[in-house]
Amino acid sequence: MSVLVVGSIAYDTVETPYGRKDDSMGGSALYFSAASSFFGPVNVVGVVGSDFDASKISFLKKRGVNFDGLYVESGKTFRWGGRYHENLNDRETLFTYLNVFENFKPVIPSKYRNAQYVFLANIDPELQLEVLDQMKKPKLVVLDTMNFWISGKRKALEEVVRRCDIVILNDEEVRELSDEPNLIKAARKVIETFNVGTVIVKKGEHGAVLFHNGTYFFAPAYPLEKVVDPTGAGDSFAGGFVGYLASKDSINEDTLRKAIIYGSAIASFNVQDFSFDHLRDLTLQEIEKRFKEFRSLTKF
Amino acid sequence: MSVLVVGSIAYDTVETPYGRKDDSMGGSALYFSAASSFFGPVNVVGVVGSDFDASKISFLKKRGVNFDGLYVESGKTFRWGGRYHENLNDRETLFTYLNVFENFKPVIPSKYRNAQYVFLANIDPELQLEVLDQMKKPKLVVLDTMNFWISGKRKALEEVVRRCDIVILNDEEVRELSDEPNLIKAARKVIETFNVGTVIVKKGEHGAVLFHNGTYFFAPAYPLEKVVDPTGAGDSFAGGFVGYLASKDSINEDTLRKAIIYGSAIASFNVQDFSFDHLRDLTLQEIEKRFKEFRSLTKF
Repeated sequence: MSVLVVGSIAYDTVETPYGRKDDSMGGSALYFSAASSFFGPVNVVGVVGSDFDASKISFLKKRGVNFDGLYVESGKTFRWGGRYHENLNDRETLFTYLNVFENFKPVIPSKYRNAQYVFLANIDPELQLEVLDQMKKPKLVVLDTMNFWISGKRKALEEVVRRCDIVILNDEEVRELSDEPNLIKAARKVIETFNVGTVIVKKGEHGAVLFHNGTYFFAPAYPLEKVVDPTGAGDSFAGGFVGYLASKDSINEDTLRKAIIYGSAIASFNVQDFSFDHLRDLTLQEIEKRFKEFRSLTKF
Repeated sequence: MSVLVVGSIAYDTVETPYGRKDDSMGGSALYFSAASSFFGPVNVVGVVGSDFDASKISFLKKRGVNFDGLYVESGKTFRWGGRYHENLNDRETLFTYLNVFENFKPVIPSKYRNAQYVFLANIDPELQLEVLDQMKKPKLVVLDTMNFWISGKRKALEEVVRRCDIVILNDEEVRELSDEPNLIKAARKVIETFNVGTVIVKKGEHGAVLFHNGTYFFAPAYPLEKVVDPTGAGDSFAGGFVGYLASKDSINEDTLRKAIIYGSAIASFNVQDFSFDHLRDLTLQEIEKRFKEFRSLTKF
């Protein structure tokens, strides 16, 4: 089934203990697409400036990512700069130049409006609402967001959460959204308060937890001795997750659990190198191999 | 097979968001025994003061815990006071009165010296070495320690680690002992540097990881909406872990993994109430039920 993602396309400048890369391709929509496209076609809606080098995304086009919803505006492409600390869990933003992204109004091309699987990447919740207003009747809407919107645009964000099927948050975000320190209670409260079916809590190196229909599922993070660049981990996780579900076109406990493992597997490849340096040449065979390894990590 | 534990016996005063308890029974040796005794007999070596109320440990005696190695000295029993923060992960020590524990020299009763399974609870590594010097030829020595000894008595601690088969550390401790920020690398470095067979890293609400023979095993924490008092979680985990291994009298990938789940299950019961209020009346049937629940938490 067709997957639609609305999110950012950016040039990232990233410093990690393993080096620095200037103006690499990045952005939530691209990381999502790179992962989701292993399982089927993906349609991207986003904006870039006239400085955008389209050759940088040709590897995605080859993999079935459709960019008819990519708007090119006069001005510069969104730029983000960040530095990761030695533990690679904490990072500081060095700069954010929204550029053409500042006035982005997501217009969904009519041929994308009946997409069945929609991923709202982390953008202004008011824009996420505009996206939902344009969609016909998606089977599954998956939401990502961040602390900035939880505190800054809470009302709009709560409205988006209510209209989604699955919310993906990290541990801090789920605590902030629910105002609950206990993670289990926090996730449950989000489910009950906003009548959302499923919550996924990402815990970085500690893995991810699925809360669905009163049950829990714990996925470990793949054990990596070297995390080179965590940028895009959350979006490539979401891409593997949504892409797998769309390929199965069935949402149940079994597919949700497997989708989380596929997402975790692809995210673990993503962080092994800068930007798309690892995802670019990754194969489905490698993903399947790592999927199986996850089984042996938790078997007893 | 017989299990020996050398550790503290204490009166704890604990404050958590759920209340305060003054002078409850506590100490690593007792939490360990309460858990380990579900699987077979346990022999305790420790010290208390003349103020110790022996009736408080009669539930352990009934469960097969042997206290012939409990020395009663004139003076007061070790007292510890702590306050847990709202997230129940961080705590501050309010007071530590070592009392009779200050001059504790662990003398292992001769009938305990051929114990096959030995748990060195978190005490001064110099005393842990004295314990090892008295033992005949244990099959398995399991070590617990803390940051205080890693920084304060590093040389003695390193010597203990070299003489142990399994080291149980939390994530901060394994990073400090190895001087490595990456958890996977850190655990591997401990294994290689000290030629120790197995490292277990406890991550609190994020579960535990087993590093053994080049493989990894991730055990989730049991999802609890209410953690009343985390005191003794690590020692009851170790008790379930060592107790199960001793009952099987076989150390391999399979028994180690199951032992970690038994340890995690008992620790999860322990933190559901203050002191021994939950472990006191716990049954093996309840533990087995929770063991099975752990399977469903990670199955995909």
